[in-house]
Amino acid sequence: MSQTKKRQLRLAAFLSGIGANVQAWRHPDTASNSPVSIEAFIEAARLAEKGKFDFGFIADSTFITRDSTPYFLSRLEPITALSAVAATTTHLGLVGTMTTSFSEPFTTARQLASLDKLSGGRAAWNAVTGALEGHARNHGGEKLYEHSLRYRIADEYIQVVKGLWDSWEDDAFVRNKQTGQYVDLDKMHTLNHKGEFFGVQGPLNMERSPQGRPIVFQAGASEEGRDLAAREADAIFSGSVEDVPAAKAYYQDIKRRAAAYGRAADEILIFPSITVVVGDTEQEARRKYDEVSQLLDVNVAIKYLSRYFSFFDFSQFPLDEPLPDLGDIGKDSFKSTAEHYKRKARENNWSLRQLALYASNPSDQFVGTPVQIADRLQQLFEDEVVDGFILHAYLQPRGLEDFVDKVVPLLQQRGLFRTEYEAATLRGNLGLPYPVNRYVQQQDATKALAA
Amino acid sequence: MSQTKKRQLRLAAFLSGIGANVQAWRHPDTASNSPVSIEAFIEAARLAEKGKFDFGFIADSTFITRDSTPYFLSRLEPITALSAVAATTTHLGLVGTMTTSFSEPFTTARQLASLDKLSGGRAAWNAVTGALEGHARNHGGEKLYEHSLRYRIADEYIQVVKGLWDSWEDDAFVRNKQTGQYVDLDKMHTLNHKGEFFGVQGPLNMERSPQGRPIVFQAGASEEGRDLAAREADAIFSGSVEDVPAAKAYYQDIKRRAAAYGRAADEILIFPSITVVVGDTEQEARRKYDEVSQLLDVNVAIKYLSRYFSFFDFSQFPLDEPLPDLGDIGKDSFKSTAEHYKRKARENNWSLRQLALYASNPSDQFVGTPVQIADRLQQLFEDEVVDGFILHAYLQPRGLEDFVDKVVPLLQQRGLFRTEYEAATLRGNLGLPYPVNRYVQQQDATKALAA
Ligand SMILES: Cc1cc2nc3c(=O)[nH]c(=O)nc-3n(C[C@H](O)[C@H](O)[C@H](O)COP(=O)(O)O)c2cc1C
Ligand SMILES: Cc1cc2nc3c(=O)[nH]c(=O)nc-3n(C[C@H](O)[C@H](O)[C@H](O)COP(=O)(O)O)c2cc1C
Repeated sequence: MSQTKKRQLRLAAFLSGIGANVQAWRHPDTASNSPVSIEAFIEAARLAEKGKFDFGFIADSTFITRDSTPYFLSRLEPITALSAVAATTTHLGLVGTMTTSFSEPFTTARQLASLDKLSGGRAAWNAVTGALEGHARNHGGEKLYEHSLRYRIADEYIQVVKGLWDSWEDDAFVRNKQTGQYVDLDKMHTLNHKGEFFGVQGPLNMERSPQGRPIVFQAGASEEGRDLAAREADAIFSGSVEDVPAAKAYYQDIKRRAAAYGRAADEILIFPSITVVVGDTEQEARRKYDEVSQLLDVNVAIKYLSRYFSFFDFSQFPLDEPLPDLGDIGKDSFKSTAEHYKRKARENNWSLRQLALYASNPSDQFVGTPVQIADRLQQLFEDEVVDGFILHAYLQPRGLEDFVDKVVPLLQQRGLFRTEYEAATLRGNLGLPYPVNRYVQQQDATKALAA
Repeated sequence: MSQTKKRQLRLAAFLSGIGANVQAWRHPDTASNSPVSIEAFIEAARLAEKGKFDFGFIADSTFITRDSTPYFLSRLEPITALSAVAATTTHLGLVGTMTTSFSEPFTTARQLASLDKLSGGRAAWNAVTGALEGHARNHGGEKLYEHSLRYRIADEYIQVVKGLWDSWEDDAFVRNKQTGQYVDLDKMHTLNHKGEFFGVQGPLNMERSPQGRPIVFQAGASEEGRDLAAREADAIFSGSVEDVPAAKAYYQDIKRRAAAYGRAADEILIFPSITVVVGDTEQEARRKYDEVSQLLDVNVAIKYLSRYFSFFDFSQFPLDEPLPDLGDIGKDSFKSTAEHYKRKARENNWSLRQLALYASNPSDQFVGTPVQIADRLQQLFEDEVVDGFILHAYLQPRGLEDFVDKVVPLLQQRGLFRTEYEAATLRGNLGLPYPVNRYVQQQDATKALAA
């Protein structure tokens, strides 16, 4: 079946940002309080829905210090924000980032299932391990677990959550007013999980949600991260697509790993985030891009960079001389991202200023006319470098507005992108298979699907 | 100041129920899936807002078993539901129940602060200790902590949460596009809590919310519960007001305890839950009440009762003979509620059937014409038995609709209840003082208030 199904381009948008540039908030055309403005989230979600986007995405992190990039210091929490967005939209998928390191799988499973229920099947979870040392100190711990232990915890955590999502068979709740039967208790199942890190009995006090199970995203590109994704995730938030050969190798690697776990290539979808700046001419696009780029202050850019190295103090390096070898700093934090930055600095013999500005400003890979943008997106999609894109607007809401008004119609005309939602659920729109409940006999499940 | 302020009646409504009777879902006029229907929550919230109610309330619990009352088996999670309701209402306060026993104070503080921010200052937390043995088994534990330990944990937990809510002074976020200053870091404060049960560093990654701090409710009527409320809570969900002298003694006891902690009587508000059935005549009201009462099945009623005794197996007792002494069962669970039921059974020489039906069906204390209802509410309010009421409709949405259309106008005509919201925030509408941030010099705070 998956052989004959035509691959479909997917589109998504960040809901939470002021813009991809960490100082875009200074621009006159954006609300400077977007990270805490539910109106800004809802505006972005409605634009995305107007563009028939698959989902809106909220990245997240909780630990802050005086060294944090200022606009990370205060932000809406994803579950609350997405629930509010759910009530004001009808089709957009709702992806929220939540860590597996300092939370309770029962509560996470429940909040996501509840979001799925109340949104009519649009919830998704971006499962991350958390990467900042100080994170632990907000949750009773002293130190962050080391990188590979975090991933072992994440693995068990995700399995527990999925197990809880199977607590009830699809048709367990009868609610027959005539007979008085509310529920069929034979269709309730108790997980009784006792693992290395978690003990969770169940059942979940939420019926099976419209998607069967909410969609699971993963973000983390190290060996361990890729492997976890290939086994457990429906989709991946994969960072950048700037280095096209590297992105293609990553894509192939993930699909190969998934195949090794017995999964079809189209059962795990890969979404890098991109920043698009559209102009009626190339010059206009470039002018818009520069206008935001020049807002960047190098000191804020260094703060942003240092976060990926667990707030490593970069002030010891001169601003404008080539950076020395950075050794293994960042190896226990945002491991894959830190390695990427170190490689870029080394390969280009960059100074601190150059690296910081590179990290803090979106690339100009997608700056151009609507046709140029559509061409590049089409190419990346058709070359199997990506399954879709998550737009990180260079400026909210304008970046998203321009894209929806000018680029989406082109993608639609080319038959690459939907003109109407195919389904009511995110799972349906992403073309992902409905998960069979683990407690249902395979035979019954096949029967149910055929019916 | 609090001497001259006229006491104001407060009104609220449960958002989450099918009705106060556990089998009301069988009634033809109610949606049988209300506990998982966000449409039902929103409908109730809008009715409450039409009636200028102070807040909507969601009770909660997570542990379920085959012995649970069926309609507790599947229910929306409060934070998600309230966030969705927030997006579809403008003035109604949003009170969600969350336990202090199996959750992370940082996450709880953050979700509530985020709800407060996105709702424009309408969030409140009903802090409960959790009372079901099995609850622990969903969260890595084997046994529930015993009753007084739960309250010691709750106390520290609430203090941590309030501490995190003071992480930022009111005006810390400057967001000045001209100067480029986003934040004043001198107004950021790190809690550095290291207590008996929790270690939480902070700061919270959410600016101070519109209410300063979200409102804190407490529900739990034992000695320990009362004391915690008197120290830490802005409001109490106090169960029933059926036994008026007992309710008045409770009211006086709480206000006295609060005074001993240096608090004014109007800084802690007491809300029992009541069920009102309005008819144009007494007979019509009684008919409506009976219509729902007769839906009750004794077996479901026993399930409901047994939950308050941690699923004690009542089947060992004959249905229609006086119950024997129940000893100390329930003492570590819903302690004060279990004691109340035991006392009722003893005093009335009730059978299991009588006790179960008593527990599972709302009392007929507020069944009558609009004038009769208004009279009774007025009396209880003026006699200082309560500060307000939380309506648990006998049938959703009809019970609430009738009350808003027929009783609220009478209360307004009598000058007992508002005709327009006084404030944008729940805190403002409840007339509760704005909390001074602990890190701000008292002097500066006075200056700020005077300005
Ligand atoms: C593209 C990408 C996006 C990420 N997004 C988040 C996020 O929103 N929140 C978070 O706490 N961690 C995020 N992470 C961090 C990872 O989940 C993980 O905690 C950390 O990077 C270590 O994993 P890795 O070395 O496998 O990338 C992200 C990582 C990548 C590569
Ligand atoms: C009126 C009332 C309402 C309560 N509501 C809840 C609730 O919604 N969820 C919950 O887990 N516990 C609830 N509780 C339980 C208490 O918070 C507490 O966990 C338990 O009753 C023991 O406290 P107590 O003996 O002080 O009443 C409630 C208790 C009372 C008296």
